[in-house]
Amino acid sequence: MKIVIVGAVAGGASAAARARRLDEDAEIILFERGEAPSFANCGLPYFIGGVIQQRASLLVAPKQQLEDRYRLDVRTRTEVTAIDRDKKIVNVQDLETGNKYQQEYDKLILSPGATPLRPPIPGADLPGVFTLRDLRDADRLHKKVREAKHAVVIGAGFIGLEMAENLVHQGLKTTVVELADQILPPWDAEMVAPVAEYLQGKGIALKLSDAAEAIEEDGTSMQVRLRSGEQVAADLVVMSVGVRPENTLAVAAGLAVGPRGGIQVNRHMQTTDDDIYAVGDAVEVRHFIDDSPIQIPLGGPANRQGRIAADHIFGRNSTYRGTQGTAIVGVFDMVAAMTGHSEKALLAAKHPYLKAYVHPKDHAGYYPGAESLSIKLLFSPDDGKISGAQAVGRKGVDKRIDVLAVAIQAGMTVYDLEEMELAYAPQFGSAKDPVNMAGFVAAGMLRGDHPMEHAELLLDNDSDQKPFILDVRSPAEFKAGHVPGAVNISVDVLRNRLDELPRDQPIVTYCKIGMRGYLATRILMQRGFTVSNIGGGYTTYQAMALSKGF
Amino acid sequence: MKIVIVGAVAGGASAAARARRLDEDAEIILFERGEAPSFANCGLPYFIGGVIQQRASLLVAPKQQLEDRYRLDVRTRTEVTAIDRDKKIVNVQDLETGNKYQQEYDKLILSPGATPLRPPIPGADLPGVFTLRDLRDADRLHKKVREAKHAVVIGAGFIGLEMAENLVHQGLKTTVVELADQILPPWDAEMVAPVAEYLQGKGIALKLSDAAEAIEEDGTSMQVRLRSGEQVAADLVVMSVGVRPENTLAVAAGLAVGPRGGIQVNRHMQTTDDDIYAVGDAVEVRHFIDDSPIQIPLGGPANRQGRIAADHIFGRNSTYRGTQGTAIVGVFDMVAAMTGHSEKALLAAKHPYLKAYVHPKDHAGYYPGAESLSIKLLFSPDDGKISGAQAVGRKGVDKRIDVLAVAIQAGMTVYDLEEMELAYAPQFGSAKDPVNMAGFVAAGMLRGDHPMEHAELLLDNDSDQKPFILDVRSPAEFKAGHVPGAVNISVDVLRNRLDELPRDQPIVTYCKIGMRGYLATRILMQRGFTVSNIGGGYTTYQAMALSKGF
Repeated sequence: MKIVIVGAVAGGASAAARARRLDEDAEIILFERGEAPSFANCGLPYFIGGVIQQRASLLVAPKQQLEDRYRLDVRTRTEVTAIDRDKKIVNVQDLETGNKYQQEYDKLILSPGATPLRPPIPGADLPGVFTLRDLRDADRLHKKVREAKHAVVIGAGFIGLEMAENLVHQGLKTTVVELADQILPPWDAEMVAPVAEYLQGKGIALKLSDAAEAIEEDGTSMQVRLRSGEQVAADLVVMSVGVRPENTLAVAAGLAVGPRGGIQVNRHMQTTDDDIYAVGDAVEVRHFIDDSPIQIPLGGPANRQGRIAADHIFGRNSTYRGTQGTAIVGVFDMVAAMTGHSEKALLAAKHPYLKAYVHPKDHAGYYPGAESLSIKLLFSPDDGKISGAQAVGRKGVDKRIDVLAVAIQAGMTVYDLEEMELAYAPQFGSAKDPVNMAGFVAAGMLRGDHPMEHAELLLDNDSDQKPFILDVRSPAEFKAGHVPGAVNISVDVLRNRLDELPRDQPIVTYCKIGMRGYLATRILMQRGFTVSNIGGGYTTYQAMALSKGF
Repeated sequence: MKIVIVGAVAGGASAAARARRLDEDAEIILFERGEAPSFANCGLPYFIGGVIQQRASLLVAPKQQLEDRYRLDVRTRTEVTAIDRDKKIVNVQDLETGNKYQQEYDKLILSPGATPLRPPIPGADLPGVFTLRDLRDADRLHKKVREAKHAVVIGAGFIGLEMAENLVHQGLKTTVVELADQILPPWDAEMVAPVAEYLQGKGIALKLSDAAEAIEEDGTSMQVRLRSGEQVAADLVVMSVGVRPENTLAVAAGLAVGPRGGIQVNRHMQTTDDDIYAVGDAVEVRHFIDDSPIQIPLGGPANRQGRIAADHIFGRNSTYRGTQGTAIVGVFDMVAAMTGHSEKALLAAKHPYLKAYVHPKDHAGYYPGAESLSIKLLFSPDDGKISGAQAVGRKGVDKRIDVLAVAIQAGMTVYDLEEMELAYAPQFGSAKDPVNMAGFVAAGMLRGDHPMEHAELLLDNDSDQKPFILDVRSPAEFKAGHVPGAVNISVDVLRNRLDELPRDQPIVTYCKIGMRGYLATRILMQRGFTVSNIGGGYTTYQAMALSKGF
């Protein structure tokens, strides 16, 4: 068996190692255009920022180790330029010597990854304009940041924000420009609006709903001209507006690709040619939840796909279950994570959904160091099945999203979240964990115990029938800031002041995070009022207002 | 509806709050023997240790708040002394005034908790001997530690170790005495043996397989006399040898209790009297996995049970799913957590099982601060269903046990662990998360790809057929310590030295954590050798040896 693999990072390297474990006799050849196989691409921003100090630590599985340990034939700085499917041959070029040759295969695995997009604006090719994909890019940036003072990052996705943080670590005055009206576009806007505010507090200038129109040389430096008319000085510009699947080889060979360019594969990662597999960021996968075709570049799935392709080559029935879209990004001390569908994705796909917000502490409030985190849970109005979740905060975010990712994988409902028995000691969680809390709120909505409205209602000025807005926090909290038009009656005295509330008008109530508002809703429902609680309370209201530019 | 609740901490307070949300008109009376309702019992050791500095922060829901917000009738320092089931009346005594009275109920909820055991040894009642259950105990200890220099903690369970840590924080020379031959008896010995070693490194004297036989006054101090003959000086002694369910009221009223004293309840938390419910540490519950009756005092389950009892009183069909035994303890920087069955529990119950060990980093090794953690996974040899998991390490332990707790709740298998899509960025995890790794190893065993032996084999000196022991680590690693009798051939050169291996004798191979050993096993299997890998490699071997006193 002769296996040829194109691309020796995540998916390709995993496929190679798995293939070797399954067959000592296979000939396994890894072609890698870059200088090193299996490097830590997710670590590159942190190398540039000096968080990772040793470049060598980015070489996760060095060439020599792959050769000795796995008896792989690793050919770096070598590009596969064409596939001849009939002859089962690839054309190869050694990028160092220029030598060209052909290589036969029995099975071919494509793991070429994805290419950073470079918007076609004037100046995009200036030497001070960078993208970040491989070690060479990282080395160039690593050098450049040490002599630069001002940076512009175009694109506020994962890489853009990680780069921005690391540029700040290196002392650069950094501006981030993002076309969307929010950072981290896969998340819902109100979840990440507080993160945007936090980044501004860290000295990053954020230009949302804006775009770079041109990059102009300015002496030894540059000026980035924005659509808004603003000009921003930059000694270096990082383009991180997204990636496109590296499909050139596949398309030239007549393999099917999807509408967004991803190489199409079946559940075994086989392309439309049975002898050619494709894995990683270059492929179009199915969404775990609704089986829709998607393009999500993630390291975990790439590794699993590589393994599955190797399994299938050796006659095993391994199948890829689909990608859930579990993702996480840390910026300074703030973390945003998600899994499954966002609200905007559910809206776009016209999937019915309900949503719940909670803002609990990451661990017991009485133990030092507890921090609030915000969880948004999306679930089916029919059976409570979980569709997606997002979490933002300083601590415990990764844990809760992992728990919810598993719940989605298992097809669990919000009722299951109520019953989850998670590890509790005061420094790690609460007897009622944030995940339980999200379950309580969501299940309460489905059971009819907890009528809910969302902050959008309070921000929609076109609505003609205004509800009576009841703030059930303490007078001190009310005084520090409240929803315009709200009347303040603390939940602790509400039972004695029911005569101040209207019986002919819907009431919406809110507190800081939704707990007291829920109790107020229970009290008023039982006394015959028409009442709903605002999900996530004033905390969600503020985030929503921020996201809408109020 | 008149609801009387005995005990106003976790389960009782949850039941009361839920009952109020369900019925504004119910009369809800909470009797609490202690001075405060709803206090943070899991925080008491940290209050004593000065980690939690404000005593007020232990009062999670103060009396006044429960009265104002939930309109509960909270009667602290008041004891319920008897139940008259026929008349549906409880006898009550005010502990401050001595006044006695009767209180009618429609529904009674018992949430009396559990009492710390005090072994009947001479001196157990000396004033310097403490147990830790409530705020009074905590106040007394809080005062005492500030004038003490030497402490003895009897019992190395959760509370014992948390107390030991906090006594060290207060500068006390601390000795821990434990009857079992390991700390943290719910865990398997080899998982916590490294924690015991770590505690000794923190200056704690550990006396395992030993017991206090007497405590004797010695001037203003005491001497604790151990079964081993040793004497340990102590200005204070903390007894933390376990708890027994507080069942006096229930037994006197003729309610059924289990063999270990727990009040017996159905899935709705009803006792053998339909109008009396019981929740929390006082009840016998069913194990989530095998439905066996168990007694596990945990805060999370107590809260859920309180909620379920209130639901059922108001005609809802809420049911308790059983307790999984998810638990966690932090001592200094080390964390041990578990969920589901331990190996010793599976052995005792004669459940068939397999086990897998992994020792991955908590996050990507190339990102600073990565620490190893150890995971032990127990699963069914038939279908791979997960039976239990334990994890020990400095970071990321709580997250992995929570993920595995959900997997158990969902009835997932080790094959599901392989496919889990968890949140990955280098500071939070790895593209192949520790949970995925555990799944790979376990599924490899079930598929026959990964023949496994365990370290016990190497430590069993009675075995007559000795395997050939092959250490596939580097010569430097081998030199630093290895299994007696092992032969060292690094996996990187193994393929060239097959002629040094026996074809007529079983081979067991090992490396540091099991990865290279697995590859060596794959190589040798395919070359016709009879070979197994040692699960968890030399790391598990060392922990196992430590646990067996080698």
